[in-house]
Amino acid sequence: MVKHALSVTRQADFAAWYQDVIAEADLAEESGVRGCMVIKPWGYGIWERIQKVMDAAIKDAGVQNCYFPLFIPLSFFEKEADHVDGFAKEMAVVTHHRLIQDGKGKLIPDPEAKLEEPLIVRPTSETVIGSAMSRWVQSWRDLPLKVNQWANVVRWEMRTRMFLRTSEFLWQEGHTAHADRADAMVETLRALEMYRNFAETALAMPVVAGEKPEHERFPGAVATYSIEAMMQDGKALQAGTSHYLGTGFAEAANIRYQDKDGGHSLCHTTSWGTSTRMIGGVIMTHGDDDGLRCPPRIAPHQIVIVPMLRDNEEDQAILDYCAALQADLKALDAFREPVRVHLDAGANKAQTKRWGWVKKGAPIILEIGPRDVAGGNVAVIRRDRLYKDDGKLNTAFVSKGDFVAAAVATLGEIQDNLFTEAKARLDSNIRRDVTDLKAHFAGDDKFVGWVEVQWSRPTGAVLEGIVEQLKALKLTMRNTPLDAAPTDGACFFTGEPATERVLVGRTY
Amino acid sequence: MVKHALSVTRQADFAAWYQDVIAEADLAEESGVRGCMVIKPWGYGIWERIQKVMDAAIKDAGVQNCYFPLFIPLSFFEKEADHVDGFAKEMAVVTHHRLIQDGKGKLIPDPEAKLEEPLIVRPTSETVIGSAMSRWVQSWRDLPLKVNQWANVVRWEMRTRMFLRTSEFLWQEGHTAHADRADAMVETLRALEMYRNFAETALAMPVVAGEKPEHERFPGAVATYSIEAMMQDGKALQAGTSHYLGTGFAEAANIRYQDKDGGHSLCHTTSWGTSTRMIGGVIMTHGDDDGLRCPPRIAPHQIVIVPMLRDNEEDQAILDYCAALQADLKALDAFREPVRVHLDAGANKAQTKRWGWVKKGAPIILEIGPRDVAGGNVAVIRRDRLYKDDGKLNTAFVSKGDFVAAAVATLGEIQDNLFTEAKARLDSNIRRDVTDLKAHFAGDDKFVGWVEVQWSRPTGAVLEGIVEQLKALKLTMRNTPLDAAPTDGACFFTGEPATERVLVGRTY
Repeated sequence: MVKHALSVTRQADFAAWYQDVIAEADLAEESGVRGCMVIKPWGYGIWERIQKVMDAAIKDAGVQNCYFPLFIPLSFFEKEADHVDGFAKEMAVVTHHRLIQDGKGKLIPDPEAKLEEPLIVRPTSETVIGSAMSRWVQSWRDLPLKVNQWANVVRWEMRTRMFLRTSEFLWQEGHTAHADRADAMVETLRALEMYRNFAETALAMPVVAGEKPEHERFPGAVATYSIEAMMQDGKALQAGTSHYLGTGFAEAANIRYQDKDGGHSLCHTTSWGTSTRMIGGVIMTHGDDDGLRCPPRIAPHQIVIVPMLRDNEEDQAILDYCAALQADLKALDAFREPVRVHLDAGANKAQTKRWGWVKKGAPIILEIGPRDVAGGNVAVIRRDRLYKDDGKLNTAFVSKGDFVAAAVATLGEIQDNLFTEAKARLDSNIRRDVTDLKAHFAGDDKFVGWVEVQWSRPTGAVLEGIVEQLKALKLTMRNTPLDAAPTDGACFFTGEPATERVLVGRTY
Repeated sequence: MVKHALSVTRQADFAAWYQDVIAEADLAEESGVRGCMVIKPWGYGIWERIQKVMDAAIKDAGVQNCYFPLFIPLSFFEKEADHVDGFAKEMAVVTHHRLIQDGKGKLIPDPEAKLEEPLIVRPTSETVIGSAMSRWVQSWRDLPLKVNQWANVVRWEMRTRMFLRTSEFLWQEGHTAHADRADAMVETLRALEMYRNFAETALAMPVVAGEKPEHERFPGAVATYSIEAMMQDGKALQAGTSHYLGTGFAEAANIRYQDKDGGHSLCHTTSWGTSTRMIGGVIMTHGDDDGLRCPPRIAPHQIVIVPMLRDNEEDQAILDYCAALQADLKALDAFREPVRVHLDAGANKAQTKRWGWVKKGAPIILEIGPRDVAGGNVAVIRRDRLYKDDGKLNTAFVSKGDFVAAAVATLGEIQDNLFTEAKARLDSNIRRDVTDLKAHFAGDDKFVGWVEVQWSRPTGAVLEGIVEQLKALKLTMRNTPLDAAPTDGACFFTGEPATERVLVGRTY
């Protein structure tokens, strides 16, 4: 039986395993500041890769990056009532702009420096960006207006979980203004499709794109769409959202344009966002009992070279061989960028290094000892095929030339393998034949994935009743998949003729 | 006489000119949130270029990017007394984590949701990063530890000026821990040299690198170094700082390591930062009475193609010609990256576009009309040579092939020209023969640059007296240049034997 690198397995305790991967892969840690984490170099390196790929997709869509204030005056917020109701419960409020020492020398907010109007630390930026848009949009010629920002936001959270739910997190938020509903809807769905494509191609994380039911909408939105990914414990992770905001925010911020006939109309706006939460999704999609497995497209290092040094006269020849190998690999392009190769010449033992990189999820680890140098070989460990069938480490010994020649293809293969594995899991864990949710989801920790049911999209009290009923089973509605099959019967909940299909499952 | 694109000249009113460039080049604007600005696409595009070049330099030095919390508990701050004194006067304080509506429906901080310990919005992150370092550093093997973050910080400012002084700004802050003073000093000066090199090669902005006098040190630092740039009005802009922090912050945060002999020692730490303020420096170094002039290395678009369309049947041929030209240029590399070429196919008139790009400071503007298409030519406007001697626009008509063949060299030439021009101004405006500061700096608005004097580096009350004396003349000490000539006489202020040279000048 294989002895794995982590102290806890997914099967034994998925939540503890998740924390263990974060610690052992050195991704992040608690900061000592309530609800906030420190993102460490390997975790931040993944975020930098995510930013780079996503930013290119955003720019390709004609969206321009800007930067808007961290602070939002209360008066901006008060203008959009639904929005306030949704966010007022969890915001950090700045009330003073100076500290003084009290009689005992302790720092306290200076009562003389109380702000006339408290400032909110942005939980999202519709209101402050809407204010800018009202200045920038004058005529139909200014539309569509499409901006994005990469920023930190704060939503006060009582129960936090690293990457998934922290009081402060990093994200991108796109905001656009359009002449009419049709154009805004095209943008809403374009952003959703951009996210789906990003999740599947960059993160190798298959998702279901669909519309959130009414009660799960972003506060103030007319329609909210999401991509939902299935984690290995069968729970759903909302990994990105795109909102059609109608004219509500435009009205609150006074975003109006003069059309070709000289009339004035309100803009239709959208917003869409993805965050560091995606890193949590990558961990729970691809991690195994030996740690993280990084998809090559977002791995800070795609190939790590570990010299097997022995503190003797052969060491220099090994290091020279490794440096030449690194240079050969760096000259290659994978996914249209130079291959990212790291030579780990640090002080640790080779065995420690190997398992360190396994836990971090480097896609390919190359170990180079004196015999490899003599024979012109490399010892290759692929993170997607770590063990052989007999449970032994799956190290392949190949010639250096052959490895280099195949390296780009191998990285592509690892990316594909991770996706294929996750996709098969997603597909096989959506059940469409369940008639008794309670029986199906019996037991708190049972891995059962999601259930797709037909429903009639009820609203008001009927919807509330269904939501309560699901809540008692710890279930939530995820989304109504855009590519679902047509309906052909009665609503699972109401018995009325079904109009669409909705996914039901557990979440975090 | 040339009629310029801006409504106010540098000569007439430098401060108003600065605001006008920011508005006309569409770099940033007031946000409606006190002390905070909106950075617009062209301004943010410059920041993205700055980030890219600087980030590569930071990584080349073996520094790893991380992310640390926005909020800092008061207790973290209280540990370093000098640091508190320096920053306590200008910080945003979070005291509540929820809003409620009062009797009149107005949003107010919820008294039930008052934080037990107020949180500071980071003005800088020594304390919170020190806390992380105390966990990360155990032994000499962990040293040096070098991290950096790209982040927003907040320092409450009463009088703000876009890019130069805003309550919130964007920056990078590097933080390192070392085994001893010598290693920490090497890092402090390495960062300073990185900044000098960046300012001069990327921003084409010549600077003087040196040590700040004692009273200008970062709160809590043992030594502070800066790069100082000279703006066109002769004032100094501190464009980056690097601090040797001694063991004070390490003691406050308990950053200790076990050395090779088993003993425990405090680390010596450093920190260094540059911010969006550099964009203000670029404006005031290179801007002219027609707007911004962007150094090619940080220009979001290095070459802009403006088709001269006339709403007739020739338009398509012009657009095709422009698209082919753009493709030819994009295939080139300048400064080791693909050339950034923008085809401005927007709805505005060609004349409007031309002056828009002049004001934004695009290094090269190409105008393409039907005759250019027929003749295989391009009309070239270089932003560094906008007018001929006779005051007419300096448009050169050259063959498309010749332009493309020389494009990379031309971009390099523009970068060099901007630097050479600014360097000549810096060099010719540092006076070393001034004996009467009051007479030399007479008149508030007189452009007189800086004065270098010899001094004995007095401390305490003597230094305070000198600082007061300078303050009365609206002067400050900038830094003691690292490459200053040896001293050879008496201190300008005290008459004691001089030990070093210090720059004196006005600032913002």
